[in-house]
Amino acid sequence: MTDRRPVVVLGATGTVGQRFVEQLADHPWFEVVAVAASERSAGTRYRDACHWVLPGSPPEDVAAMTVAPLDPVRLASGAIHRPIAFSALPASVALDVEPRFAEAGFPVCSNASAFRTAPDVPLVIPEVNPSHLALIAGQRRTRGWKGFIVTNPNCTVAGTALALKPLDDAFGLRRVFLATLQAVSGAGYPGVPSLDILGNVVPWIPGEETKIEHETALLLGRIEDDVQIPAGVTLSAQVHRVPVVDGHTVCLSLGFDASPTPAEAEAALRGFRGTARVQALPSAPATPILIRDEEDRPQPRFDAAAGAGMSVSVGRIRACPLQDLRLVVLAHNTLRGAAGAAILNAELLVAEGIL
Amino acid sequence: MTDRRPVVVLGATGTVGQRFVEQLADHPWFEVVAVAASERSAGTRYRDACHWVLPGSPPEDVAAMTVAPLDPVRLASGAIHRPIAFSALPASVALDVEPRFAEAGFPVCSNASAFRTAPDVPLVIPEVNPSHLALIAGQRRTRGWKGFIVTNPNCTVAGTALALKPLDDAFGLRRVFLATLQAVSGAGYPGVPSLDILGNVVPWIPGEETKIEHETALLLGRIEDDVQIPAGVTLSAQVHRVPVVDGHTVCLSLGFDASPTPAEAEAALRGFRGTARVQALPSAPATPILIRDEEDRPQPRFDAAAGAGMSVSVGRIRACPLQDLRLVVLAHNTLRGAAGAAILNAELLVAEGIL
Amino acid sequence: MTDRRPVVVLGATGTVGQRFVEQLADHPWFEVVAVAASERSAGTRYRDACHWVLPGSPPEDVAAMTVAPLDPVRLASGAIHRPIAFSALPASVALDVEPRFAEAGFPVCSNASAFRTAPDVPLVIPEVNPSHLALIAGQRRTRGWKGFIVTNPNCTVAGTALALKPLDDAFGLRRVFLATLQAVSGAGYPGVPSLDILGNVVPWIPGEETKIEHETALLLGRIEDDVQIPAGVTLSAQVHRVPVVDGHTVCLSLGFDASPTPAEAEAALRGFRGTARVQALPSAPATPILIRDEEDRPQPRFDAAAGAGMSVSVGRIRACPLQDLRLVVLAHNTLRGAAGAAILNAELLVAEGIL
Amino acid sequence: MTDRRPVVVLGATGTVGQRFVEQLADHPWFEVVAVAASERSAGTRYRDACHWVLPGSPPEDVAAMTVAPLDPVRLASGAIHRPIAFSALPASVALDVEPRFAEAGFPVCSNASAFRTAPDVPLVIPEVNPSHLALIAGQRRTRGWKGFIVTNPNCTVAGTALALKPLDDAFGLRRVFLATLQAVSGAGYPGVPSLDILGNVVPWIPGEETKIEHETALLLGRIEDDVQIPAGVTLSAQVHRVPVVDGHTVCLSLGFDASPTPAEAEAALRGFRGTARVQALPSAPATPILIRDEEDRPQPRFDAAAGAGMSVSVGRIRACPLQDLRLVVLAHNTLRGAAGAAILNAELLVAEGIL
Repeated sequence: MTDRRPVVVLGATGTVGQRFVEQLADHPWFEVVAVAASERSAGTRYRDACHWVLPGSPPEDVAAMTVAPLDPVRLASGAIHRPIAFSALPASVALDVEPRFAEAGFPVCSNASAFRTAPDVPLVIPEVNPSHLALIAGQRRTRGWKGFIVTNPNCTVAGTALALKPLDDAFGLRRVFLATLQAVSGAGYPGVPSLDILGNVVPWIPGEETKIEHETALLLGRIEDDVQIPAGVTLSAQVHRVPVVDGHTVCLSLGFDASPTPAEAEAALRGFRGTARVQALPSAPATPILIRDEEDRPQPRFDAAAGAGMSVSVGRIRACPLQDLRLVVLAHNTLRGAAGAAILNAELLVAEGIL
Repeated sequence: MTDRRPVVVLGATGTVGQRFVEQLADHPWFEVVAVAASERSAGTRYRDACHWVLPGSPPEDVAAMTVAPLDPVRLASGAIHRPIAFSALPASVALDVEPRFAEAGFPVCSNASAFRTAPDVPLVIPEVNPSHLALIAGQRRTRGWKGFIVTNPNCTVAGTALALKPLDDAFGLRRVFLATLQAVSGAGYPGVPSLDILGNVVPWIPGEETKIEHETALLLGRIEDDVQIPAGVTLSAQVHRVPVVDGHTVCLSLGFDASPTPAEAEAALRGFRGTARVQALPSAPATPILIRDEEDRPQPRFDAAAGAGMSVSVGRIRACPLQDLRLVVLAHNTLRGAAGAAILNAELLVAEGIL
Repeated sequence: MTDRRPVVVLGATGTVGQRFVEQLADHPWFEVVAVAASERSAGTRYRDACHWVLPGSPPEDVAAMTVAPLDPVRLASGAIHRPIAFSALPASVALDVEPRFAEAGFPVCSNASAFRTAPDVPLVIPEVNPSHLALIAGQRRTRGWKGFIVTNPNCTVAGTALALKPLDDAFGLRRVFLATLQAVSGAGYPGVPSLDILGNVVPWIPGEETKIEHETALLLGRIEDDVQIPAGVTLSAQVHRVPVVDGHTVCLSLGFDASPTPAEAEAALRGFRGTARVQALPSAPATPILIRDEEDRPQPRFDAAAGAGMSVSVGRIRACPLQDLRLVVLAHNTLRGAAGAAILNAELLVAEGIL
Repeated sequence: MTDRRPVVVLGATGTVGQRFVEQLADHPWFEVVAVAASERSAGTRYRDACHWVLPGSPPEDVAAMTVAPLDPVRLASGAIHRPIAFSALPASVALDVEPRFAEAGFPVCSNASAFRTAPDVPLVIPEVNPSHLALIAGQRRTRGWKGFIVTNPNCTVAGTALALKPLDDAFGLRRVFLATLQAVSGAGYPGVPSLDILGNVVPWIPGEETKIEHETALLLGRIEDDVQIPAGVTLSAQVHRVPVVDGHTVCLSLGFDASPTPAEAEAALRGFRGTARVQALPSAPATPILIRDEEDRPQPRFDAAAGAGMSVSVGRIRACPLQDLRLVVLAHNTLRGAAGAAILNAELLVAEGIL
């Protein structure tokens, strides 16, 4: 027995659930005590219930676990404190299941989109808006929950908003045109059929553009009197699926109040760090934003894994004929953009004393 | 012996040169009488000189030809009229070779970028700006050439400018943000190494963004007193290479003088045809712009070959949070975007009586 | 109204069903009068029921048809003669549905595996074993069917057995080691998830090795007294799925009674033609077996479409350190290997006067 | 200053050279003191001379080095002992350069094919035939070298011979049919053009089949009186390039003296370890041969990195209709198959006291 905090993974058999299991395998603070999934998988061994789509095999201890149903009563440990519940559930399932866990006292760190835009649910990137966790108190009070829900953003937003944060702070971001080239792992398993994507581009991902436009404004916004005030920035997103396994590439054109030069923008990005508390978290990368100087980087196959998948790579910072800046942002969509994001949120909750 | 006009292909062994050879194989008006290439290939049979990267094999008659050097004297047929020279030369070679052919009396229909922005050289898409051929007279006069040079645009511009033309005509195009996802065939052979692009995205193509921004304005512009006046539109381009064989995808956000609705824009695109003379050309597609209604089209693997590779497919026409419209344009980069473009230009020259 | 024979496509919405619809669009002898599929699709327009995974769009006339249920009564035209039923059904569905159509008087040309190894059902490649159609009479008699079932082989076997036929005839084939590299279109839609196959190889396809080993021996065998006698050849197959869209590549090592040299084998392959009757069929390629001389061919992207997808390409014919010969065979898996195979069988039935 | 042994990397800018640099970055026994390459690169900083095709960036200390020419005088450290020279040179260059280094006293651990089949040069896999190092003494004596050359096998053979070793020991291997599906990283950089391999298979790699057939027999053979006696096994290899980045897949059919059952073969593979001395080497994997139980493994994207790229994965062990066994072997072609192989050889030389 260790003194690591017990955690459970909801939706553990999917691609993001697998990333949770992989990333938590040797976590210094957390220990997976249960994996849960839909009725179809519940009752079978994790090893058999999941088609593992990460290199190698699932960690032996989790592989041997029997998958539990999505039932908070069954997953509550005997002890006073509920395990942290990491949710990799599909949005439609999360809508029903996550409140039941929060009501039963679980702190839910969710990667699902179901509650990301609920007014009393914090949508948080620790380096960007840790203060939004202040919404939790009101959430518990209003909803009468012993636990609570905290969410992390969409896989594209996770990297993009992080790269935009220091630029917004320094220069006042107002207008963003962006186009994405997104990896197939973002669509889960079986996800994108190979007949759709081999040697091809699909210029559409259901609901993605709206999520990008809305969530980014929330993350760059502020909290006043328990109310989320979105930032005064307007985004226009155009999304594409490309035949890449991991790593979302985003190209952006940015307009600011105080028009920065590329050099000024680069300096702001290079100097960016989260708070000292965030920097000290186990999953926080040494450098949240890495600048690539090469004219042809970042690239998903070479840069997605930077900082153990938690650093965002930025390159091609240059002027734009129509606005202030153009640049390219790349982040690992299932680490910085999903499982790693939720784990970092949980670590922040512990460091802040909320857990 | 046929009464088709003799043509020669310069740079015939490269990927675009191969497309010329393929497309001219059964052309009703033109007949390949010689293929020419650099010293390295000259003197060997075409079959052996070229690594054929199109399906099947090169046409038997051309395969059996001996590759000629890039020498206008050697390639002039005995007859009074010089063959049309289709140029698939690299820009650096074209800069020297194309003027020598024009001087020697060859009409040069060039896909090279060398002279695309020369003030007296027409840059033409037959459906978009056929009147720009009027520059030829001054070009011959000023340069003292018996022949002349006509160019077609960059592979990305060829499809994009065609799709923008009816919108500019109807609504006055002013501002264009665009991001491209470009196929590897655009980079020639050996071109993009597989280690660079398998499962990857490269957010950079040398010189491409400038070409797109500059050539589009020329194509949408006008000629006054033998001077090209670029259109009053500003573009911001961000380019990417993706693991696709043929077909460049471009997503755009557009701002106009007269803000059209998506429905108005779609109507303008659907109704677009070239002049009656252009519509009657052998390589002109029945419908230059095809509208795709599906939410996830156009896609390169399914739409690049539309209209024998000469139709441009447009989809996802919708509002933009920051400007008037967003849409996706797709065209075949080595047909509409290269060999097919030059052949269509040559056909127009014939139909206009210039040849 | 034409005087083409009416045909119906069973399982019309899947990937092979789509190939039937595409290939039959301008067929000189056949006309699609109905498309049928499972209950889930029946009642909706074909355009909406099927996710079209071929270039462009489905033919307009079929796109506008309402999908019928898999019911022979509903699909029987009023006329005396039943339409030919092309079956692209999954094996488990075909097992039940195809006999009901045969009983109701439909000639069923099936691509499904359900009846391929039934002793009274012909498994036919027109160039290889047209005489096996003689089983039909017994089949109808024994089963009491007004119609009948004829099958074509598995997508890998279709090309491989065709290439082996002239070698077996000339030299007596005894032992075959083969390894396949198979395209994803062979697995239908959604079929192979992109997360499984992007940048990857899967060394397993359920049931495929057994089908290859068994069906090839049947095709090279003979009929005696209404009984199929498999050829005296033993095969060992090892299969792989690779990230290719269309075209199965197969490498083989062959052992014969009369050890041929590579040159003798090549001569036998080059000289091979089907019977005069088969050669005259509309879908029969001019040359069923194409020899590629290049040391690096055949390749799926360049050779799968040869002969409109109905020619088999053979290359790298060379000695083997352990047996007589090594060579590489490539065929289009959804044309020669599926829809085209069934259509060619139907054409043979017409030419033979059986229909 | 550390007390790690100094090493130099010859051909350091290529893809295998980069793997040496990456793998030696934190090596416990070795320290890169110089990188050398052809005249074209010599004199520039490593960072600028090499197009890094591995994730991230080259290690900072090596990135800052100036690339040296391939000159043993310049690369000899002042000390008495020469650095170990790891050679990632092309074969044609190695043929000339490696003897000059050996003559000058360098122990050369070469990945090049130039001397692999020289009768007095050991071709070694530490787990397979460590005793072949005994050839070194004679090599130095005969050639009058102060140093020597040791080689590791071809990237395909490295994994295959390792998997065959325990089966040969236990059952007497006689006949091997094999087909490969090889990754593009095996062809260096720029290597395979993307136009050749995207969505395609190339059934040919120059010289590869002969190397596989010959080197495997040498590795399984023995040394008698300073003479290499190849094993009494005959191989037939058929090779293919596939669109995979790293990891060669090989399917095999095996014939033995003592026909093993699949279970017996699996037991022999599972129990296999190198000598205790080899097992203790820093780069030796805990388990040289990993058995995959799943019916669809091993796969390159999921298994190539097993054991830090030094374990070989074996799966689908089953009977063969024509011989004793069929199975699939997968190994990382630039780690176990190249740089890692040479480093493991160098470690063995140290452990054996030869260095």
